[in-house]
Amino acid sequence: MHPRFTSPALLLDPKICQRNLKKMADKAHRLSVKLIPHFKTHQSKLIGQWVKSLNIDEITVSSIKMAEYFSHDGWQNIHIAFPFNPLEIPKLNHLAQEQSLSVQLVNVEVTEKLVLELKHKVGFFIEIDAGYGRTGVNKNDLDKIDGILTAANKTSLLKFKGFYIHAGHSYYENDIDQIYIDTREALAQLKLRYIGEYPQLITRTGDTPGCSLMEDFGDINEIGPGNFVFYDLTQANIGACKKEDIAIALCVPIVDVQKDKKTILVHGGGVHLSKDFLLAPDGSKSFGEVVILHENSWEIPQQRSFVKSISQEHGVISASDELLDLVKIGDVIGILPVHSCMTADCMKKYYLFSGEEIDHLEGQ
Amino acid sequence: MHPRFTSPALLLDPKICQRNLKKMADKAHRLSVKLIPHFKTHQSKLIGQWVKSLNIDEITVSSIKMAEYFSHDGWQNIHIAFPFNPLEIPKLNHLAQEQSLSVQLVNVEVTEKLVLELKHKVGFFIEIDAGYGRTGVNKNDLDKIDGILTAANKTSLLKFKGFYIHAGHSYYENDIDQIYIDTREALAQLKLRYIGEYPQLITRTGDTPGCSLMEDFGDINEIGPGNFVFYDLTQANIGACKKEDIAIALCVPIVDVQKDKKTILVHGGGVHLSKDFLLAPDGSKSFGEVVILHENSWEIPQQRSFVKSISQEHGVISASDELLDLVKIGDVIGILPVHSCMTADCMKKYYLFSGEEIDHLEGQ
Repeated sequence: MHPRFTSPALLLDPKICQRNLKKMADKAHRLSVKLIPHFKTHQSKLIGQWVKSLNIDEITVSSIKMAEYFSHDGWQNIHIAFPFNPLEIPKLNHLAQEQSLSVQLVNVEVTEKLVLELKHKVGFFIEIDAGYGRTGVNKNDLDKIDGILTAANKTSLLKFKGFYIHAGHSYYENDIDQIYIDTREALAQLKLRYIGEYPQLITRTGDTPGCSLMEDFGDINEIGPGNFVFYDLTQANIGACKKEDIAIALCVPIVDVQKDKKTILVHGGGVHLSKDFLLAPDGSKSFGEVVILHENSWEIPQQRSFVKSISQEHGVISASDELLDLVKIGDVIGILPVHSCMTADCMKKYYLFSGEEIDHLEGQ
Repeated sequence: MHPRFTSPALLLDPKICQRNLKKMADKAHRLSVKLIPHFKTHQSKLIGQWVKSLNIDEITVSSIKMAEYFSHDGWQNIHIAFPFNPLEIPKLNHLAQEQSLSVQLVNVEVTEKLVLELKHKVGFFIEIDAGYGRTGVNKNDLDKIDGILTAANKTSLLKFKGFYIHAGHSYYENDIDQIYIDTREALAQLKLRYIGEYPQLITRTGDTPGCSLMEDFGDINEIGPGNFVFYDLTQANIGACKKEDIAIALCVPIVDVQKDKKTILVHGGGVHLSKDFLLAPDGSKSFGEVVILHENSWEIPQQRSFVKSISQEHGVISASDELLDLVKIGDVIGILPVHSCMTADCMKKYYLFSGEEIDHLEGQ
C-alpha cells in the first residue's frame, strides 16, 4: 500500500487540517475572541494561506527566524511569542522596516536594550508566568511589570500591547478548568490595573488544550493556539481532540515482521518522529500509533498498534493481530505522532496524498 | 561572551573531535580490528575527510540517503547498516553503479526481492539480534540464516560478507562485559559454522560504549562505532568517555535570569537539542549540561548547571551559584548534549570557533 512514499515521509491530510482550522476560527468568532494562531506547529506558508482564507489577519511565531519566513505574506502583525533575545535586535530592526511586529518581554534588562537600539516601531506584550515556572513575570510582581513599562516609555518606538499567558501546564496537569480560572483571573486583574493608563490594552492566552476545551475566556481578548492545526496523540490523550482530528501521519516502510514476537520493524525513528512519547498506565511508552494508509485518507484500525521503542532511524511497533494479518514487508503504514510540532520540525516538509510537496520553514 | 552566535548554533571543537577519532583508530590498530566508523552521528563530509586522513577507507551509514551523500568521496565501500528497505531497490541500483555498497539483511523476503530486482553487485551482512530485540535474526535461528543465504545464492550480484551485531543494549544495561562475552560468542559460533562455505566471512560489531570500553574483541574482525566522534552526556554517564571528550556544544543565548529561583531561560529547546534526557537518581531530568564558552574552547564549570526542562524552543536551566554570578541576560553559553547524534541531526550544520560552517547532510 502507498508505494508512492518509499522512504519516511510526512503525510498531511488537508481535509482534517482545514476542518481543525475552521472549527477553531468558528469557536473564536462565537466566543468573541480574536484568533491569532501560532504558526510554530506547521511553519508552512501554504497552510498560512489556508489560515488567511478564514479572515485571520495576525499570526504568532516563536522565533525571529520564523517571523522572517512569514513576512511579505501580508500579515497585519506577526507576534514573536518568545522572551526576546537581545542579541537579535539587529535582525529585529531589519525585519521591522517592512513588517509590523510585536515581541514578548519578561525583564527590564532587555527592555532597556531595546530602548537604546531599536530603530523602528515594535509592539510588545509582557509575558506573565502561567504558574508552572517556564517563563514570564510573576503576576504579583508589579515592580517588575512597572519597571518594564517605565523603561519602555523612554522610547516612542516600543508600544505596549498587553499581557500574554501561555498556560502550557494544561498539557500535563489534569484540571484545565482550574488552570483557566487562574488564567482568566490573572489577566483580568492585570487588565483592570493597567487599562486606565493603557486603554488599548489587550490580553491573550494560547495553549491548544485550553483553547480546544474551554468555553469561557472571561474578558480575555485574544487566543493564540498552535498545535490544533494538526493535533496529535498528546492532545487526544488530554481530550483536546479525537484521534480522527490528527492531520499528519508519518509514512514508514515496513522492513521486517516478527510474527512470533508480534513486532514490526519500520524505517522511522527519532530523527523522524522526535523522541517525545506518551506513558501508558502500565509504564510502557508509545512514540506513535499505527494507521492504515488508503489512496486519499488513512484509517484508524480497530485494534491499537503502537511504536513501542525508537532509536535514531528504527521504530519497533507492537502490532495487533489485525495489523499482522493485514501488512507485510515492503508495505508502508502511517504513524500518528505523539507531538506534531516536533515531528513536522524533524521532517521539514509535508506531502499531500497526491505526492505534492508542501513547504515547512526548516526545509528551506 | 561569544556574541558571534546570536541564535542557537551548534559549535564543534575540532581538537576534541580529531582526538576522539585518533584514539579509536589507534585502539583498532592495537587490537587488530578494522575500524569502519558509522557516519550517522556526524553526517558530515568534512569530518569524513578527517576520518580518511587516519587511513580509514570504508564507512558505515544508516540510510541510503546517507550513502548517497557520502558517495563520490572515494570510500572503498559504504555499508548501510539498517535492515534493507525493499522499496529502495531502485535507489540502490542507481547508487551501486558508481559506489561499492553493502546492505544488511534480516529476512528471506527482502533477500528474494533483491535477487529479482538487483542490477549491480552489492555486498550484504546478516544482522544478528544482539539480544535486546530491536532488530536482527536470532543467533540460533539457523533456518532463517540458511534461508537468507540460500536465497542470496540465486544471484551472483549479492555477495555475502558476514555477520553484524549492534549491541545497542550497552547503552542502558550495566554489564557491558557480559554483553561483550555474548557478542563475541555469538559471532564466533556463527563464523565457525559458516566460514567453511564462506572463507572470506567477516564479523562486525558496533556500539560506542563497547568499542570505547572493551579491550577484547575475540576474533571479531571489524568495529563500526559512530557516536565516539563527538560522544555526549549519555556516553559520559555510561563511562565510555569523560565530559571533556564531548566535541559539540549547543550555543544558546540567555534571555532571562531568575536569581531567586536559580533558573536561567535560554533560547534552545527540543528542536535544537532533541528531547533525549538523562534521569538522575532523584528522578530529575537533564536535557544537557552548561559549559562556559571561550574564544577557542569551552570550559566545564566546577559546579554543575543543567537543562532541567525543555519545550519546542525554550530551555530552563537549573543554575549553580557559580553560573549565576558569571553570566547575564544577553550572554551566550554552551550546552553539552545528552545525545549528540540527535542534536546534530536537529541543527543540520556545525560551526567552528571561527564562525566557519561545517556541512551536515540534513542542511543540504
